[in-house]
Amino acid sequence: MHDHSQIDFETLLAGAALRVEAMLDALLGARPLPGEIDRPQRLLAAMRHGVLNGGKRLRPFLVMESAALIGADGEAVLRVAAALECVHSYSLVHDDLPAMDDDDLRRGQPTVHKAFDEAAAILAGDALLTLAFDILADPATELDARAKVELVGKLARAAGIGGMVGGQALDLAAERDAPDEAGIIRLQAMKTGALIRFACEAGAIAAGAPQADIERLAEFGSAIGLAFQLADDLLDHTSTPEAMGKATGKDAAAGKGTLVALHGEAWARRQLGGLVTQACDLVAPYGDRAAILMATARFVAERDR
Amino acid sequence: MHDHSQIDFETLLAGAALRVEAMLDALLGARPLPGEIDRPQRLLAAMRHGVLNGGKRLRPFLVMESAALIGADGEAVLRVAAALECVHSYSLVHDDLPAMDDDDLRRGQPTVHKAFDEAAAILAGDALLTLAFDILADPATELDARAKVELVGKLARAAGIGGMVGGQALDLAAERDAPDEAGIIRLQAMKTGALIRFACEAGAIAAGAPQADIERLAEFGSAIGLAFQLADDLLDHTSTPEAMGKATGKDAAAGKGTLVALHGEAWARRQLGGLVTQACDLVAPYGDRAAILMATARFVAERDR
Repeated sequence: MHDHSQIDFETLLAGAALRVEAMLDALLGARPLPGEIDRPQRLLAAMRHGVLNGGKRLRPFLVMESAALIGADGEAVLRVAAALECVHSYSLVHDDLPAMDDDDLRRGQPTVHKAFDEAAAILAGDALLTLAFDILADPATELDARAKVELVGKLARAAGIGGMVGGQALDLAAERDAPDEAGIIRLQAMKTGALIRFACEAGAIAAGAPQADIERLAEFGSAIGLAFQLADDLLDHTSTPEAMGKATGKDAAAGKGTLVALHGEAWARRQLGGLVTQACDLVAPYGDRAAILMATARFVAERDR
Repeated sequence: MHDHSQIDFETLLAGAALRVEAMLDALLGARPLPGEIDRPQRLLAAMRHGVLNGGKRLRPFLVMESAALIGADGEAVLRVAAALECVHSYSLVHDDLPAMDDDDLRRGQPTVHKAFDEAAAILAGDALLTLAFDILADPATELDARAKVELVGKLARAAGIGGMVGGQALDLAAERDAPDEAGIIRLQAMKTGALIRFACEAGAIAAGAPQADIERLAEFGSAIGLAFQLADDLLDHTSTPEAMGKATGKDAAAGKGTLVALHGEAWARRQLGGLVTQACDLVAPYGDRAAILMATARFVAERDR
């Protein structure tokens, strides 16, 4: 499974994760910023617990590599990547709450409401979501004001009722009332697809790409998002809690339909192959510069945790 | 207590509230916006329950009247006002949750987690916070991109760990460990002061005011914010649940210190008078145009619910 290029890719991903974590660590510093009255230290610790947890940082990586494809790799891109990871992390903190998915472990560590308490987890999530928009608007994120407004608007739309939050609401409803295939596809496009699509789009916007490139990278992101969810469903179907560092088989136990449950593993693996081809075709016009994004598409489809 | 000008002011406030509610109603429509995949209707209903609840709309009013003082009163200002009300409403939905203040009633109606469920209340709050930034960035909010970035950045900073969310964290901690006077002042400046200050600042920014006017209106907002909190503490100290439409005496019951508890009612009323004078002095240079903001300062200090 792990050929030489795969190992190189994981090294690259881990290196980017270190840069993102250093940025997140700096953004979650102890001292108040201008305009802040104070930073309550226990809330800050809960935010840090929710974010600085050894995640793969796939979404920030997609921001950075989409920007690099266009030719940008500066601090502003890294800040946009960190802002997106704040949104992803807040969603995990809230999804893990007892009133939602009720998970005690996340990547082998206690979830925020277990390590702190429920109120701290709710507020840490709220503060991380707010921080994402703070980072985008901050003068230290040196981008054109129009690019910033576009990033804020598209992030809000990808994360809000018409995207990620709405998808989580549909996911909770799916436990009571199993959706049909179209419903599953819509749920997944909202819950995980919208933010992964935004990651690629955001990299292009931050790099100042022309509209056609922004749209092409957004489409690449949509294909990656579908592949990510399908691979996730396959892992939930076949893996063990030990390998995943979290509970598995939960979807089946909760009576939730997945495309893997509907169509089987063989179909899912064929679909994954098709999505990787589609994603690679979308960035093929960029030639050699697209090699890393193509490797990312393969990694997302083939990952084993 | 209610002289003629007071009645006129309340009519004015109620009229502005109707405009804000019409805008919020439109922003929370059933149909997905461009870039949204779907709007799950139960989540939308929970958001609407949390926002369209007959609030006084004081913060939007401050946005609108601060903008009007500078000479702007268009749709963009109303949208900024609505965005701020989304943030205020989300904070009430989350603060009411069982893990936080555990309130069943808000303005005499069931809170969102009672009318729906806890998961819906968490997600509705998340979606309302996200919507606020969506509204500010939306092309339909016809403001200069730099003004939008400034609004996003200042709203995020007023609402995040260094402002409102941090204040709520300190407020919960205050039940275990009573803060001293400086701690109470800091807590209140964060929990309620920051967003009221932002309301006045935002009106000036949306109106394209020069920096000196933005700062003057922000200072006016800070004085109003202090007066608002002191009046709230006085009401909690002296009013009945029937008059308030929510539980009263909760701060004392929870062992939380307030400045009223520390210094007494007479001191608090003198302080309130001083804050109104300070606020009015700040906007006096604008002459007749400042009449409504001055009336707002008096209303905030003298309100009986």
